[in-house]
Amino acid sequence: MAKVIAINAGSSSLKFQLFDMPSEKVVTKGLVERIGISDSIFTISVNDEKQTEVTDIPDHAVAVKILLSKLTDLRIIQSLDEIEGIGHRVVHGGEIFNDSAIITDETLKQIEDLSELAPLHNPANIVGIKAFKEVLPNVQAVAVFDTAFHQTMPEQSFLYSLPYDYYKKFGIRKYGFHGTSHKYVSQRAAELLGRPIEHLRLISCHLGNGASIAAIEGGKSIDTSMGFTPLAGVAMGTRSGNIDPALIPYIMEKTGKNVDEVLNVLNKESGILGMSGISSDLRDNIQAASEGNERAKIALEVFASRIHKYIGSYAARMSGVDAIIFTAGIGENSSEIRERVLKGLEFMGVYWDPSLNKVRGEETFISYPHSPVKVIVIPTNEEVMIARDVVRLTH
Amino acid sequence: MAKVIAINAGSSSLKFQLFDMPSEKVVTKGLVERIGISDSIFTISVNDEKQTEVTDIPDHAVAVKILLSKLTDLRIIQSLDEIEGIGHRVVHGGEIFNDSAIITDETLKQIEDLSELAPLHNPANIVGIKAFKEVLPNVQAVAVFDTAFHQTMPEQSFLYSLPYDYYKKFGIRKYGFHGTSHKYVSQRAAELLGRPIEHLRLISCHLGNGASIAAIEGGKSIDTSMGFTPLAGVAMGTRSGNIDPALIPYIMEKTGKNVDEVLNVLNKESGILGMSGISSDLRDNIQAASEGNERAKIALEVFASRIHKYIGSYAARMSGVDAIIFTAGIGENSSEIRERVLKGLEFMGVYWDPSLNKVRGEETFISYPHSPVKVIVIPTNEEVMIARDVVRLTH
Repeated sequence: MAKVIAINAGSSSLKFQLFDMPSEKVVTKGLVERIGISDSIFTISVNDEKQTEVTDIPDHAVAVKILLSKLTDLRIIQSLDEIEGIGHRVVHGGEIFNDSAIITDETLKQIEDLSELAPLHNPANIVGIKAFKEVLPNVQAVAVFDTAFHQTMPEQSFLYSLPYDYYKKFGIRKYGFHGTSHKYVSQRAAELLGRPIEHLRLISCHLGNGASIAAIEGGKSIDTSMGFTPLAGVAMGTRSGNIDPALIPYIMEKTGKNVDEVLNVLNKESGILGMSGISSDLRDNIQAASEGNERAKIALEVFASRIHKYIGSYAARMSGVDAIIFTAGIGENSSEIRERVLKGLEFMGVYWDPSLNKVRGEETFISYPHSPVKVIVIPTNEEVMIARDVVRLTH
Repeated sequence: MAKVIAINAGSSSLKFQLFDMPSEKVVTKGLVERIGISDSIFTISVNDEKQTEVTDIPDHAVAVKILLSKLTDLRIIQSLDEIEGIGHRVVHGGEIFNDSAIITDETLKQIEDLSELAPLHNPANIVGIKAFKEVLPNVQAVAVFDTAFHQTMPEQSFLYSLPYDYYKKFGIRKYGFHGTSHKYVSQRAAELLGRPIEHLRLISCHLGNGASIAAIEGGKSIDTSMGFTPLAGVAMGTRSGNIDPALIPYIMEKTGKNVDEVLNVLNKESGILGMSGISSDLRDNIQAASEGNERAKIALEVFASRIHKYIGSYAARMSGVDAIIFTAGIGENSSEIRERVLKGLEFMGVYWDPSLNKVRGEETFISYPHSPVKVIVIPTNEEVMIARDVVRLTH
């Protein structure tokens, strides 16, 4: 009974999911919040019921210790020896990692060196890696990178139209994110379509609070909307996506903010929140729009329209498309956004059924059977991809 | 014999074209360069032959005086009284001007106020306006704005995904440029197609040293690739087009440049020049690529690929497209770029004939007769649009 644990560590949080492999059954999952802050919260699911405990958890190593003792105390596993591998989500793998990697001193050093490219995320991921290493030093650990799936992009997709030295000297290029999710749903789509992924052209729309679109040809990412950072691409909950770069000095001049403050506005006060002034949550905006709020209406229009245009753009990129996939919070659950995104794509062979589009959070085709381009809602599952990579790399 | 003169004034230059109206015959045209710099150059075409004169021209008013005396001295016109109107190209009309406008003290003041949005261009345009006003005070003048044609864009196209106040307080929105050119070629396309423009969905690719794409539905611009400034959109000769906005502080940190210096790099050292390191001129890069230069190859790929993707995006925006138009230096002359841009659009009904695509600078259909989507090369003519607007508004 091999168990594999998938970890997603943030600066003050730790998400975990314990898998039985190779059955891929989720044994338990949970979350530690407010690590290093008073009144930390530990939540774990046991037999589909959530148990919550508030206690002071000073650091990630303590969080890991509490987690592991809970696993045996609650008889979820008999012994820690059952845990055969640990998989860590790591945001940035740069150009070094085009696949998941066993964590050695060398790879850990490389992940640390890449922190410059993801100053908010990689250091938190590293804290999680080190906490497990301290508590379970003999269990193999694997890093699974958000960027790795997109490393197959050709230069014409990843190169910015900037001085070439900026790429060579400073690593300035498009990396793309949400790779584990785009990979999962594209593989799942191939299974659902019953066709070899090598023959498919897919457009995957990962629409959550962060959102990115990927063009996936023959199972490989060949283009994606996020860029050097997750700020780029479509409009998101609080992020601006692409804007005219000349706006940055103009906003600085008009508001008196410095460049970092302006970037903070683009990351945290823009997107749906900035346009509507209501909330970054799409549901609040759909509610407000239905009550006649004009700014909520325009925020929804802009959000959906940018995704709609990316689909056209990526269909052109691959000279056509076989299936469009919707995933993540909004993609899985919002029939309203899916409708707005899909409307008017008949010219490229997309015919979808409004009654099927009512689906929420279930794996379903929402295109008509005769539609040349299929449309599929697929709940994403990054955790199972992490667990699979642990098994693949450590066995 | 009504004559109308179309003027495009830069900070040290003045382009002119004299039309006989309503025949639209070009009577003469020319250019004054290095105004305010020693060894200014005055060039004028007489009977299809260029005459050039090097002399010191201290300011635009002197340039205008020399121009007007040349017109009579060379017997191009008998008397200055024949000039019934002057049309001035003005880059930025903001949200005030959705059409060309007769220049009064009030409109001149408005154009001055808009200089903040186009600090390099509007002041130079104003110098040109004032110089003519000084020399020909009784001739009516009309301002023709690069932005006016795009004022029909709906909010979902022009609004950035930024705090809404930035739009209301600071005028931060997409304006779009090359409007006079997009308008000319779209009207001409409708004539060539023999269909009412109200029923057409057109994608216009204005590809010069600056480049922009426009989605034109029913004769109205509904979206365009340039933004708040002409820096946004596709890669250009020296401009970056869209990049991840988070790159600006990163480049600042890596290079030690301040934000204005980085913007200068994005405007003047990026694009085809930056990627290839060879030249901003496409022809130099095509030559170098044919000799095996890898960076020239990738620069061409990026340049063409971004335009290709915009076509897909704008087809989605209009739920299909009836014709794609190529115009301006590269669009009219480069069969190589047109080929790269069009390749792989068959899925949306674009079938083009390689032998017709050899055309340079001539009005020609390059799509096959059976192609559902037509492709047309149309040499642009912003000057005639200026002359037409002078006649329309002053008669």
